[in-house]
Amino acid sequence: MYKKFDTEIAVRPNEIDINRHVHQSVYFDYVLFARWDQMRRCYKMPMEEFFKRGYSWATKSASFEFHKPLHLGDTAVVRTWIREVKQKSVRVCFQILRKETGEITTEGEFIYVLINARTGRPEVIPEDVVRKYSV
Amino acid sequence: MYKKFDTEIAVRPNEIDINRHVHQSVYFDYVLFARWDQMRRCYKMPMEEFFKRGYSWATKSASFEFHKPLHLGDTAVVRTWIREVKQKSVRVCFQILRKETGEITTEGEFIYVLINARTGRPEVIPEDVVRKYSV
Amino acid sequence: MYKKFDTEIAVRPNEIDINRHVHQSVYFDYVLFARWDQMRRCYKMPMEEFFKRGYSWATKSASFEFHKPLHLGDTAVVRTWIREVKQKSVRVCFQILRKETGEITTEGEFIYVLINARTGRPEVIPEDVVRKYSV
Amino acid sequence: MYKKFDTEIAVRPNEIDINRHVHQSVYFDYVLFARWDQMRRCYKMPMEEFFKRGYSWATKSASFEFHKPLHLGDTAVVRTWIREVKQKSVRVCFQILRKETGEITTEGEFIYVLINARTGRPEVIPEDVVRKYSV
Repeated sequence: MYKKFDTEIAVRPNEIDINRHVHQSVYFDYVLFARWDQMRRCYKMPMEEFFKRGYSWATKSASFEFHKPLHLGDTAVVRTWIREVKQKSVRVCFQILRKETGEITTEGEFIYVLINARTGRPEVIPEDVVRKYSV
Repeated sequence: MYKKFDTEIAVRPNEIDINRHVHQSVYFDYVLFARWDQMRRCYKMPMEEFFKRGYSWATKSASFEFHKPLHLGDTAVVRTWIREVKQKSVRVCFQILRKETGEITTEGEFIYVLINARTGRPEVIPEDVVRKYSV
Repeated sequence: MYKKFDTEIAVRPNEIDINRHVHQSVYFDYVLFARWDQMRRCYKMPMEEFFKRGYSWATKSASFEFHKPLHLGDTAVVRTWIREVKQKSVRVCFQILRKETGEITTEGEFIYVLINARTGRPEVIPEDVVRKYSV
Repeated sequence: MYKKFDTEIAVRPNEIDINRHVHQSVYFDYVLFARWDQMRRCYKMPMEEFFKRGYSWATKSASFEFHKPLHLGDTAVVRTWIREVKQKSVRVCFQILRKETGEITTEGEFIYVLINARTGRPEVIPEDVVRKYSV
């Protein structure tokens, strides 16, 4: 059982689409920002540290279920948590909630693969990273 | 068995991310553009016609599998086809190929729901739309 | 002499471009968000109120001078202030600072025209709006 | 007197904003794409060649005048031309036209500085580049 972390994001006017909703591809970037923020703030293992060690994370897959739209004026709460740590990859779940009401607007899952930043090839996740992720 | 259609998209410099690849949320917009283009050009049923009839399409879910990156200088071929037409929704598959080599860089699936543009509620897909989609 | 207001924006990974800097068109959206935020928070005259009264603001012109880049990990402070209120338009200056150092990274100016939301035609700015802007 | 070049760009659904117009920061990226395309196609001096020689181009300033909006369904013609080649910088003008009507929707100017890709410092533009630009 892994811990859940939250990152708040205020909706910006440029993210609103022709339907007056947050445009759906924007959720992709909300999750990306939340993970980046939480790696630094919650797991104490900022992305820069991976770069320094010659690693990077690549998105292997992503899925989204859209339940309700977000609007201008809303604040999104992006909640993410690890579902499973495999030898070379991590499965991360997310929910995007409307802060004001707590409703789940979108949810889904990402699989990230640890890669060698130089070769682009998958790498075994080092023990200390697995430990830091196991909160 | 439904027909497959292609839309070509030239990668733009602003779509390239810190890893020198097309940023992953951009694929979302590539598929959206391809469907919009193909509805008009291939199914002869432009999005505007849906608006006029009081309908709109909402994305219910989306999934992506990322195999290889696209780079600046590449042209993406976005291939989409209908997998299944249900009473109120359509399942659409896509592949994004690198035009120069034919490699599949990303693939996945969207489910679109027909909604009443005013109420936002799902609607039964009219017979003539089902027919036009059945190519 | 008009008052200056600040809005803080955390740089997001998707905003970083091929040069590892915040992509330059992103500054456009930072200023847009800052104005939207400050209209609500600082001028007590949220954008929604304009919509309700049948108005909207259109950007007539925008100019940017880029001095230094912002990077991932930076927080932008977007400072804007009114330079001049004309009969139908407002001239707004901005500076985007790196929060950590106070350096000005980008600065420039926008001209916004008040328009009739239905016709798109410029309108005389009402007295009470001029007053609220005159802080 | 320098030559003018055109690049066509089809408006994409994700570029449409809450007002049902192409969002204004998108024009920034249209110009960027047009210059990148024209450097390769019209000046026979692709961006990659600059990278290979250790150079890059940095935007020093940008200005926009917005006359009319572009809509979904429009094709933008992005016309750019050099106004002036200085020792270390180039002044480039642009117009964005609606292809269907020829109307100028937006126009403006960019100043690009040639920089050393490693140090980020401005560099004197080499003679052969000046010559290739002088068409």
